[in-house]
Amino acid sequence: MIIIGEKINGFIPKTLAAIEARDDAYIIEITKGQAAGGATYIDICAGTAPDVERETMEWLIDLVQSNTDTPISLDSSDPQVIIDMMPRVKKPGLINSISLEAGKCETVLPAIANTDWKVVALTCDSNGIPDDPKVKFDIAKKIIEQANELGIKNDRLFIDPLVTTLATKQDSLISFNEAIRLIKAAYPDVNITSGLSNISFGMPFRKAINMQFLALTMAAGMNSAIMDPMSQDMQATMHAVNALLGNDEYCVEYLGAFREGLFGATK
Amino acid sequence: MIIIGEKINGFIPKTLAAIEARDDAYIIEITKGQAAGGATYIDICAGTAPDVERETMEWLIDLVQSNTDTPISLDSSDPQVIIDMMPRVKKPGLINSISLEAGKCETVLPAIANTDWKVVALTCDSNGIPDDPKVKFDIAKKIIEQANELGIKNDRLFIDPLVTTLATKQDSLISFNEAIRLIKAAYPDVNITSGLSNISFGMPFRKAINMQFLALTMAAGMNSAIMDPMSQDMQATMHAVNALLGNDEYCVEYLGAFREGLFGATK
Repeated sequence: MIIIGEKINGFIPKTLAAIEARDDAYIIEITKGQAAGGATYIDICAGTAPDVERETMEWLIDLVQSNTDTPISLDSSDPQVIIDMMPRVKKPGLINSISLEAGKCETVLPAIANTDWKVVALTCDSNGIPDDPKVKFDIAKKIIEQANELGIKNDRLFIDPLVTTLATKQDSLISFNEAIRLIKAAYPDVNITSGLSNISFGMPFRKAINMQFLALTMAAGMNSAIMDPMSQDMQATMHAVNALLGNDEYCVEYLGAFREGLFGATK
Repeated sequence: MIIIGEKINGFIPKTLAAIEARDDAYIIEITKGQAAGGATYIDICAGTAPDVERETMEWLIDLVQSNTDTPISLDSSDPQVIIDMMPRVKKPGLINSISLEAGKCETVLPAIANTDWKVVALTCDSNGIPDDPKVKFDIAKKIIEQANELGIKNDRLFIDPLVTTLATKQDSLISFNEAIRLIKAAYPDVNITSGLSNISFGMPFRKAINMQFLALTMAAGMNSAIMDPMSQDMQATMHAVNALLGNDEYCVEYLGAFREGLFGATK
């Protein structure tokens, strides 16, 4: 599993407080904690007003890369902010995210064409987020084709089929997994990723839904997640499913993660 | 999900101690607890030496059916003990279990032919437990055909494809789910059941493996489990997966189980 560590995000209240207070210590703590939890990328989303977003991103980027070697995921709704931050990042990372919304592919894809940067692509466009897996597939197809034309190979693309909320749509998981199936059948080399918490919005005891969403999407072929690698519950789920799916010979990864205290720690 | 409540089993040390002490209070507590947890059947396994098994079974049967209306699952390795206990049980329940081992089908199937009793059938024979899903299927097929010849319909059969231990067989879940697929393709009306803990034998933090085994087998079509309905973790997993698979309109069952405190209770 390719883990995109989600904790440095200004939309999370505790992180927002640390950003506003320029609290180096807390950002360093969640940087090192996520790296220790096996994050492949550390996502950085300032989540602040546009006038201070660039300055905040710069502070966070410097702080993260002076405290870990883990590559960075640049996360902004403004593709120009992302492009402008790229030179500050020491090694190629991940761009989070593009979609078919106007200007996003056109701004980001040429900028990463001749680099080793990777990119998350959401299956939405200016009409919003489709429910129909076939429409999700069509959007993914258009983005993949645009990327391929610029020489960006499929293994540099992370398609996020944008799960809807289970409380309002009974077939959220079914539809999400069908989108995975359609995309992987046509493009076996693309990565599939997703945040884990949208599915459970409005429900009690959300972690039960989030854990099983991770399990059932991994079984359907999802190979990445935007998640909290410091969560014992998510680590336990991820490693157990990985072993059950036959991807962990002699359960070496499961046993190693347990020994490192990533899950199963007594509190 | 059809839950076969597993707690009244003499192979569980705490239950064995209660059986040996003839501790009515503890047996009543786990009877009522399992019924409240939604058990469809309450399994009774004396797990004692043959000379006291019948006497123990009788005490347990009387105790259970005087404290709940939930049907009983008669669990013994000796098919004759099961048959002899049937008249004592007030309403038709479940027989746990038969297999192709000599004498089991021949003893049990005629005895339940013209009743409403149901039966668990394990995919093993006198050669032991096969690894190959096709061999598991062949055994299931033979048992199903024998049952059908006596007029026992498929919805009265609970096939248990006998999962192996993940620590020693990397493809345990894959092979188990493939057996489910083969059996359900040929016999869509049969029930599929399994114990949840064999898979994790020898591993640390077994509940993580057991929970995800339940999730991934439910996704593959398993509609019953021999489990502890008093476990908050298993209830949370079962209800979350049921909702995610689209089987729980408006998440009514999930919300109801949460409100009843079956999972998510603060300790």
